[in-house]
Amino acid sequence: MPTIFFYGPELDREKKKEMISSFTQTASKLTGIAESAFVVYLRPSGPENVGVGGQLLEELQKKQK
Amino acid sequence: MPTIFFYGPELDREKKKEMISSFTQTASKLTGIAESAFVVYLRPSGPENVGVGGQLLEELQKKQK
Amino acid sequence: MPTIFFYGPELDREKKKEMISSFTQTASKLTGIAESAFVVYLRPSGPENVGVGGQLLEELQKKQK
Amino acid sequence: MPTIFFYGPELDREKKKEMISSFTQTASKLTGIAESAFVVYLRPSGPENVGVGGQLLEELQKKQK
Amino acid sequence: MPTIFFYGPELDREKKKEMISSFTQTASKLTGIAESAFVVYLRPSGPENVGVGGQLLEELQKKQK
Amino acid sequence: MPTIFFYGPELDREKKKEMISSFTQTASKLTGIAESAFVVYLRPSGPENVGVGGQLLEELQKKQK
Repeated sequence: MPTIFFYGPELDREKKKEMISSFTQTASKLTGIAESAFVVYLRPSGPENVGVGGQLLEELQKKQK
Repeated sequence: MPTIFFYGPELDREKKKEMISSFTQTASKLTGIAESAFVVYLRPSGPENVGVGGQLLEELQKKQK
Repeated sequence: MPTIFFYGPELDREKKKEMISSFTQTASKLTGIAESAFVVYLRPSGPENVGVGGQLLEELQKKQK
Repeated sequence: MPTIFFYGPELDREKKKEMISSFTQTASKLTGIAESAFVVYLRPSGPENVGVGGQLLEELQKKQK
Repeated sequence: MPTIFFYGPELDREKKKEMISSFTQTASKLTGIAESAFVVYLRPSGPENVGVGGQLLEELQKKQK
Repeated sequence: MPTIFFYGPELDREKKKEMISSFTQTASKLTGIAESAFVVYLRPSGPENVGVGGQLLEELQKKQK
């Protein structure tokens, strides 16, 4: 039954698969709960909808370029 | 004030209405709080962003076909 | 795999059971996904940690008495 | 490390910036934690995915027009 | 209907009230939605349940003392 | 800025540390974002507040004994 949410950048398909696989294996090993019981939600969040340190991430990224 | 989040597949309009109505009625009855105070968020999550048992749901669904 | 979160008052055991059962049945029927795949998290939130309309719920409840 | 989630309507860029800035300043002042440690997630939720008082927000808004 | 979640340290009562009041006023002004429709959930998270930069916050705080 | 939430059983301190460390390393590697930017929230959820397959987890666990 455990559930993991990841809020972060959009990833390509291979990276999604690796993240889901790794999170599930780690959490299954540490909790002793079967991998089949785990659900992982990837919740992409674009830089136009994230604030870091009080500033819009989209603007922080522009400044860094 | 209670708030309900549903993470699952995208639903059509009639099903959304029925889910919101049913969740709210049930929760209002059980808590004794007026239905008007309830908010339900439907948060669709496509199979390309969900992992079940360590695998991407999108791939699990392909295999089942 | 669908997941439901309920943020609201603490409930007694029988009400928790009824909420979980009802939410799951409704959501299973509407999504066509087996009940066994659903997880419901009840996340109790006391009135000292909720704000409604800009005021602490704990204080709103005192005024209503 | 504190994290703030806002579930509500989509906002334009200037309003997003002001919300992120204001939430972060307020929370930094009240917690005593540096602004740089705060992350704010704006999670837009359209009226077709929100229920208020048991009804789809999209339909409530139509009735009000 | 907008909803705000704050994940961070436990606060005393006066600070909770100020956070709820400030978040609600700001968000009401920026969205044009009445303050009465806003709910804020304060979700305290102790340093034994938070990881920052890959380390348990509780241990990071010990090192800083 | 990415943020990970884990909803599951309470873990002991060493397991918490390993979960936080592993999740952060994996996610940092896959996103290319520095580990220092990651926050992990462990949100313990007791079996009296979780429903699986429409039943209270606490009761499912009793039956299994």
